[in-house]
Amino acid sequence: MQKITTPTLLLDEGICKANIRRMAEKAQHHNLRFKPHMKTHQSAQVGEWIKDAGVTAITVSSIDMAHYFAQNGWKDITIAFPCNVGRTQELNKLAQNITLTLLINKPETAHQLETHLTSTLNTYIEIDTGSARSGLASDDIRAIKELITVIQKTKFINWVGFYSHAGHSYSCRSEQEISEVQHSIVKQFNNLKKCINPDFGTFEICSGDTPCCSVANNFGPIDAISPGNFVFYDLMQTQIGSCTPTDIAVAMVCPVVDKYPKRNELIIHGGAVHFSKESMTKNGLTHYGAVAQKIDNHWKPLDTASHLVKLSQEHGVICCSDVIFKSYDIGDAITILPIHSCLTANLMSQYQLTDKNGTQVNMM
Amino acid sequence: MQKITTPTLLLDEGICKANIRRMAEKAQHHNLRFKPHMKTHQSAQVGEWIKDAGVTAITVSSIDMAHYFAQNGWKDITIAFPCNVGRTQELNKLAQNITLTLLINKPETAHQLETHLTSTLNTYIEIDTGSARSGLASDDIRAIKELITVIQKTKFINWVGFYSHAGHSYSCRSEQEISEVQHSIVKQFNNLKKCINPDFGTFEICSGDTPCCSVANNFGPIDAISPGNFVFYDLMQTQIGSCTPTDIAVAMVCPVVDKYPKRNELIIHGGAVHFSKESMTKNGLTHYGAVAQKIDNHWKPLDTASHLVKLSQEHGVICCSDVIFKSYDIGDAITILPIHSCLTANLMSQYQLTDKNGTQVNMM
Repeated sequence: MQKITTPTLLLDEGICKANIRRMAEKAQHHNLRFKPHMKTHQSAQVGEWIKDAGVTAITVSSIDMAHYFAQNGWKDITIAFPCNVGRTQELNKLAQNITLTLLINKPETAHQLETHLTSTLNTYIEIDTGSARSGLASDDIRAIKELITVIQKTKFINWVGFYSHAGHSYSCRSEQEISEVQHSIVKQFNNLKKCINPDFGTFEICSGDTPCCSVANNFGPIDAISPGNFVFYDLMQTQIGSCTPTDIAVAMVCPVVDKYPKRNELIIHGGAVHFSKESMTKNGLTHYGAVAQKIDNHWKPLDTASHLVKLSQEHGVICCSDVIFKSYDIGDAITILPIHSCLTANLMSQYQLTDKNGTQVNMM
Repeated sequence: MQKITTPTLLLDEGICKANIRRMAEKAQHHNLRFKPHMKTHQSAQVGEWIKDAGVTAITVSSIDMAHYFAQNGWKDITIAFPCNVGRTQELNKLAQNITLTLLINKPETAHQLETHLTSTLNTYIEIDTGSARSGLASDDIRAIKELITVIQKTKFINWVGFYSHAGHSYSCRSEQEISEVQHSIVKQFNNLKKCINPDFGTFEICSGDTPCCSVANNFGPIDAISPGNFVFYDLMQTQIGSCTPTDIAVAMVCPVVDKYPKRNELIIHGGAVHFSKESMTKNGLTHYGAVAQKIDNHWKPLDTASHLVKLSQEHGVICCSDVIFKSYDIGDAITILPIHSCLTANLMSQYQLTDKNGTQVNMM
């Protein structure tokens, strides 16, 4: 691989494929449809690795992302985001060519959408299982039934079930806490399922967050999962309890441009426009990334006190252990594990594989 | 202007040009060279407005940005970032065509750079006036003199003076506090100037941070200023005390996709990949943006309790006053002032002008 002289996001194909394979096998083992979320990697190439694991249906978070993956051969796409009624023309175009599934959470959304539809599409109703972001409360049976009824009266929208993103699992700090969130989701969907009259027809329950999908072993009435971050994982997921540091498939490599011995600080080209300003706090220290050891073209997470402690637009400040400080000179490149791989990948917009050619992989 | 159905960054040309004019006039009044930083807007078009204010020399934060503005006709560019010795080929190319100025903070950087240079370029030495990011301490006279001597012995590098970015002014919370930071910078540069033997030749002092440049009225020995954020300002700058809310020249407009009356919360398409995760805390509330009132194609900052309180990758959650909540329906667009315009602009990568055509302005 050529010397790295500019902030670069490395992608370890081996770790990434292992993450995909493990989740695909888990889905199969629990008899779950696997509809992975593509928002973390946003890459047709990583999509191919997912296809190789036998996946045929995917999840995305925007209409633009749906277009991109449709153009790259995906035929069954769920946009896991409250339907944007201002962009029905684009939804019509998509629905002509693929099996398109949306989220509809309000009767007025169904009404507004129906007025402009020319193609048939599917919708889940989003259930708020505790994240307090979007979706109907799982025990608001009256509103849920009313919404199913409104949707089933439309000509172009098929109701296919329920969707939930348990974002509150991100505040967990152990496998035990994640299992408790999953237990609560399973309980809520069990209750909901009992309340929905068979007259409404068969339906699917899809639930997707990386912590629960990584850790849980009881999926109860859940039929499908759509985690996204698991393809790469990151430091935040290690803190939550979803993975170990060796599961992290991406790392930033940045050139050292200056160093300050009195403060044991290295200055890198690598700032908020590369890492994002997502931070995490552990043992009282708030930081934006942790230094890893580079081994050949790969890396090994380090168990030392060397962190990216300050970010401006293009500068990063790494506060180091003595050993790390001494082992880097101006002009060297240093490897840093990201806090939130979704946001770092989105900013970097391409990957460099850790193969010997340093192959470039594009994003949308 | 067409209805906005996707996250859009509006740019008010009138406010922006007034911000540029005001800073240009202030520089002229204080007999300062005005070398504005282009990192906030990253746009050739905004660059033209700056050119119209009589500016001939600019500042950037990366080699890529220097290339972009050189391609757009700028002939005098300072890269205000510790010199990246791994990219000397690109520096040579740039220095062939424009007056290029770098920051060199270490003798080894000068040595490494000199080995690969084929074109003459200028350098400032960066002085750390209190931000504890990069640069030599202003009272480390021995190291400063040694570095000047090293640089002056090279064939291709001209030493032209000192540069400082007083990033610590960002922790100020009033004009008074900003003036105190400026007072300290002026004092440090007065002392430094006394210590530098006239044998080293004439030199320039350039200092550039938006809070000090906006508020200060005593520039002492400073010869040039290079603020950047002032072209747009943002909520963070209002909190620091650099500007008033009516000086903010950019605003995000995002479609409302869902609403929750019990929580007085609107859900928008507009998340961390649009706003960035930069937050601010005021009166105990941490938020990612404040709702503004849209008037025709412009906006007026609001004095109410309506803020963007939660961000995921594509979702934003706005916690509203009753009045704001009731005045927005699903499908409407809502206007939000950003916390940190540099990071929001970098993510959005284009502007829509508030003129009646909604003209698109590109970034690099």
